[in-house]
Amino acid sequence: MSLPAPALSAKPYLSDARASLTREITILDEFGERRAIAIPAERPLTLFVDKRELLTLMTLGALPELLVLGYLRNQRLIERAEEIESITVDWDVAAAAVKTRDGIADLEARTARRVVTTGCGQGTVFGALMDHLAAVQLPAAQAARIRQSTLHAMLEVMRQQSSIHRKAGSVHGCALFRGAELLMFVEDVGRHNAIDTIAGWMAMHDVHGADKTFYTTGRLTSEMVMKSAQMGVPIIVSRNGVTAMGHDLATQLGMTLFGRASNRHFLCYTGFERFDAEPEPQRGPVRVVSG
Amino acid sequence: MSLPAPALSAKPYLSDARASLTREITILDEFGERRAIAIPAERPLTLFVDKRELLTLMTLGALPELLVLGYLRNQRLIERAEEIESITVDWDVAAAAVKTRDGIADLEARTARRVVTTGCGQGTVFGALMDHLAAVQLPAAQAARIRQSTLHAMLEVMRQQSSIHRKAGSVHGCALFRGAELLMFVEDVGRHNAIDTIAGWMAMHDVHGADKTFYTTGRLTSEMVMKSAQMGVPIIVSRNGVTAMGHDLATQLGMTLFGRASNRHFLCYTGFERFDAEPEPQRGPVRVVSG
Repeated sequence: MSLPAPALSAKPYLSDARASLTREITILDEFGERRAIAIPAERPLTLFVDKRELLTLMTLGALPELLVLGYLRNQRLIERAEEIESITVDWDVAAAAVKTRDGIADLEARTARRVVTTGCGQGTVFGALMDHLAAVQLPAAQAARIRQSTLHAMLEVMRQQSSIHRKAGSVHGCALFRGAELLMFVEDVGRHNAIDTIAGWMAMHDVHGADKTFYTTGRLTSEMVMKSAQMGVPIIVSRNGVTAMGHDLATQLGMTLFGRASNRHFLCYTGFERFDAEPEPQRGPVRVVSG
Repeated sequence: MSLPAPALSAKPYLSDARASLTREITILDEFGERRAIAIPAERPLTLFVDKRELLTLMTLGALPELLVLGYLRNQRLIERAEEIESITVDWDVAAAAVKTRDGIADLEARTARRVVTTGCGQGTVFGALMDHLAAVQLPAAQAARIRQSTLHAMLEVMRQQSSIHRKAGSVHGCALFRGAELLMFVEDVGRHNAIDTIAGWMAMHDVHGADKTFYTTGRLTSEMVMKSAQMGVPIIVSRNGVTAMGHDLATQLGMTLFGRASNRHFLCYTGFERFDAEPEPQRGPVRVVSG
């Protein structure tokens, strides 16, 4: 009987690279006045996997190591954080050096097909990923549900959350909830980066998706739905709308999507069976209608 | 003395594939009511260049032939529309067959490097494109300017424009203006597709960018700025904000960026030298302040 390799139980070493998340610029407004405003930072980060260049991401730079880990996970280039020995980000050279324990098999072949997905927004997903979705297993509707009161509480937490978006605009936020409890919130210039960063955090902390809900400020595109499904999270709430392929894919996978969600307003686009309209929907003067 | 090849003066044949741009779905709202809403269509379109698969774009499907032409142009895989003999889109197989006159040299090598850019959104740009920007020549600030009154008139045209966005949300619009005259407007699920479609239209009609202005509902990311520069358009107006790399790149290239533009409100982020604050900015009770 052989012993399991001890290395496989160890989480990767992550550096803790920091960078400024906003920058001040001088603008000229419609009254002819010059004044300073903040805009979000945006920086290239080139991924090297075992010294081989994989690709360059543009990121705000909040949590680059978790972004890289989650990117590799969501591209299914790795299955578990333990396959990585270390991720070292150095902003001076705009590089993330990923060291794997045993290499990534067929890296070349697995990153060869390109699909440019939608977005406000496009994202790059490597082709084999599409094929993988057939294997996604989400919890049954009876086991993973959301109540209207929980949804309201989540939206209230998000409303109060301080953010780069509030200071500087032009970023997307993504959050992971268990019930109405906010577990993790991150912003990035691209919403795909934000969700990848959460995937990295989940992989580092062995957090599973089945009893969780995602919140995103971005649209519910096929790529957002696909990433959420891969992470095992069956419910997504968006402040924004849905695209047709996002809707199709979520319906096929048995996921629940809420959009236009803010304050007490929302639309449930698909997956009504996970939703408990409880407490009873109100029809009184407190009714808030928007968008 | 050899004669010029006559084929080079001919524009490509473009098919005229049509598809429905919205779809109806049934939603459940916060009052427990089920009702029908429209969402934008979204479909994959796989590009085959001389029978070789290049990539798959996700698109609304409004003007797929111009999207493909503009995509090839903005990726600098072609310089002129005349290099293409035909673009035939068939939605039944979700494919665009591009036939070139003389092939595309080094297609393999030129599409090998990947950069995943920002976005609400990310976009895919092939690496060599970055190198090309040094060669971009935009008209001098004295030759390509915009007046505050023209900007206001443009925004009023956009405010009155009917759109898929108004019907179904979740798409980005992009428009090309000469002064306050709207020349071309298109929407797509990704703003990069929208600007590529306009590039295709410009290539088909020999429209040059020097005296034009772009309008976009999306953020001013580095990729939007880069594409606009390649198309020779020195001024971009956005209803949205700017990212740091969009700002840097536009400043380097001598472009002018306006953001948060709607009604009479705007911020000029960079390139003040192309802007004439005329008529004099108003300070009276008509002042509209937002965002």
